[in-house]
Amino acid sequence: MSDKKLAIIATKGTLDWAYPPFILASTAAALGYETQIFFTFYGLQLLKKNPNLQVSPLGNPGMPMPMNMDKWFPVIGTAIPGMQSIMSSMMKAKMKKKGVASVEDLRDLCVEAEVKLIACQMTVDLFDMNSSDFIEDIDYAGAATFFEFAGESDINLFV
Amino acid sequence: MSDKKLAIIATKGTLDWAYPPFILASTAAALGYETQIFFTFYGLQLLKKNPNLQVSPLGNPGMPMPMNMDKWFPVIGTAIPGMQSIMSSMMKAKMKKKGVASVEDLRDLCVEAEVKLIACQMTVDLFDMNSSDFIEDIDYAGAATFFEFAGESDINLFV
Amino acid sequence: MSDKKLAIIATKGTLDWAYPPFILASTAAALGYETQIFFTFYGLQLLKKNPNLQVSPLGNPGMPMPMNMDKWFPVIGTAIPGMQSIMSSMMKAKMKKKGVASVEDLRDLCVEAEVKLIACQMTVDLFDMNSSDFIEDIDYAGAATFFEFAGESDINLFV
Repeated sequence: MSDKKLAIIATKGTLDWAYPPFILASTAAALGYETQIFFTFYGLQLLKKNPNLQVSPLGNPGMPMPMNMDKWFPVIGTAIPGMQSIMSSMMKAKMKKKGVASVEDLRDLCVEAEVKLIACQMTVDLFDMNSSDFIEDIDYAGAATFFEFAGESDINLFV
Repeated sequence: MSDKKLAIIATKGTLDWAYPPFILASTAAALGYETQIFFTFYGLQLLKKNPNLQVSPLGNPGMPMPMNMDKWFPVIGTAIPGMQSIMSSMMKAKMKKKGVASVEDLRDLCVEAEVKLIACQMTVDLFDMNSSDFIEDIDYAGAATFFEFAGESDINLFV
Repeated sequence: MSDKKLAIIATKGTLDWAYPPFILASTAAALGYETQIFFTFYGLQLLKKNPNLQVSPLGNPGMPMPMNMDKWFPVIGTAIPGMQSIMSSMMKAKMKKKGVASVEDLRDLCVEAEVKLIACQMTVDLFDMNSSDFIEDIDYAGAATFFEFAGESDINLFV
């Protein structure tokens, strides 16, 4: 087992960018890393009880489109109403079929592995968010508090 | 006070992604960190005298929409002309109302706290930018120079 | 020469975000850093033999538009069919004119400088990608393997 530390700042609130912080944190925890994730800006969406995260193909030509959908709906098609829901459902189905855990399951895995999940208090206030919308196994703190851990960490990642 | 170091690479040029580098850098500086930010790619927009930064809801379903706007303008609505200006004005108003400093004020705070702001010379040349468009309290350097500081830093963040 | 180490996680698959990992890695390698890039999620696009990477102005108001194009096509214009190809061709032409190497050339430079390029096996499986689509000078591994290097690195960057 390692005595190393990993600090992640999670700033994105979409379905696709929800995976990296939870996958990296749970992997590191399994390797014995002490791990903290600081959720700030859009990243706070990842702490909601029912996140309902979406993925958007808009502005991301790097996204592999399933079933040659890009040949049917080139660029402008990605903006038609409903496309975002279709893509989000497809990504969830693909993850499930391939045996990748859901975001909620990966998050549970992190909690069980004692990854510390911290909500940025300033962002909670800024977006008028309600702590009752969030899961219960989290702390609330500011950036200054997070730096105490980050400054001692072996790996820092801004996701 | 700390004798730690923080190195940030700021690569985004939008209103929302302008906050993290300046908030993190000014917080770290207040904690005694020696701090440098290397502005490259779109990040150079953050060094302009009059940045006129915009935020776009396009392709970012993780953005909390004010006033249930997402129920009025689902996805395709985010692409209608003028929406970007509306969202940018709303974000600025919200930040102000909540007592969060403007990007320009946060940037001034960084300069006063002796955070070193470095413009990537290669990007300046690439985009035919004019140094007279930038604020005056900055240095110009390449990635190799920045690595000297980054390689000695306790925290490295790619924003 | 340095005995330092740089670990990059490359997660984006667009033309613009292809430059930072390869530029940073080749610069670091030239400075004597031992360097590894772990390509995961959309980042795997950067390892394709013929990447055909695209850049999208959609949702990125921080992108400097060439030839005052933003005055001709404000926001909604960025979604018209063909705009993505136009912007991608323009960016490639601009890079070439300014003497910046192409993504493929920067990648070759990294291989020659013994930067270790690692494809995330889980993502390859997830997206049903075929290893014959990738260049040959790469390794395949999981996040756990990558942490062995990242945990010992002086600089970690999530791009």
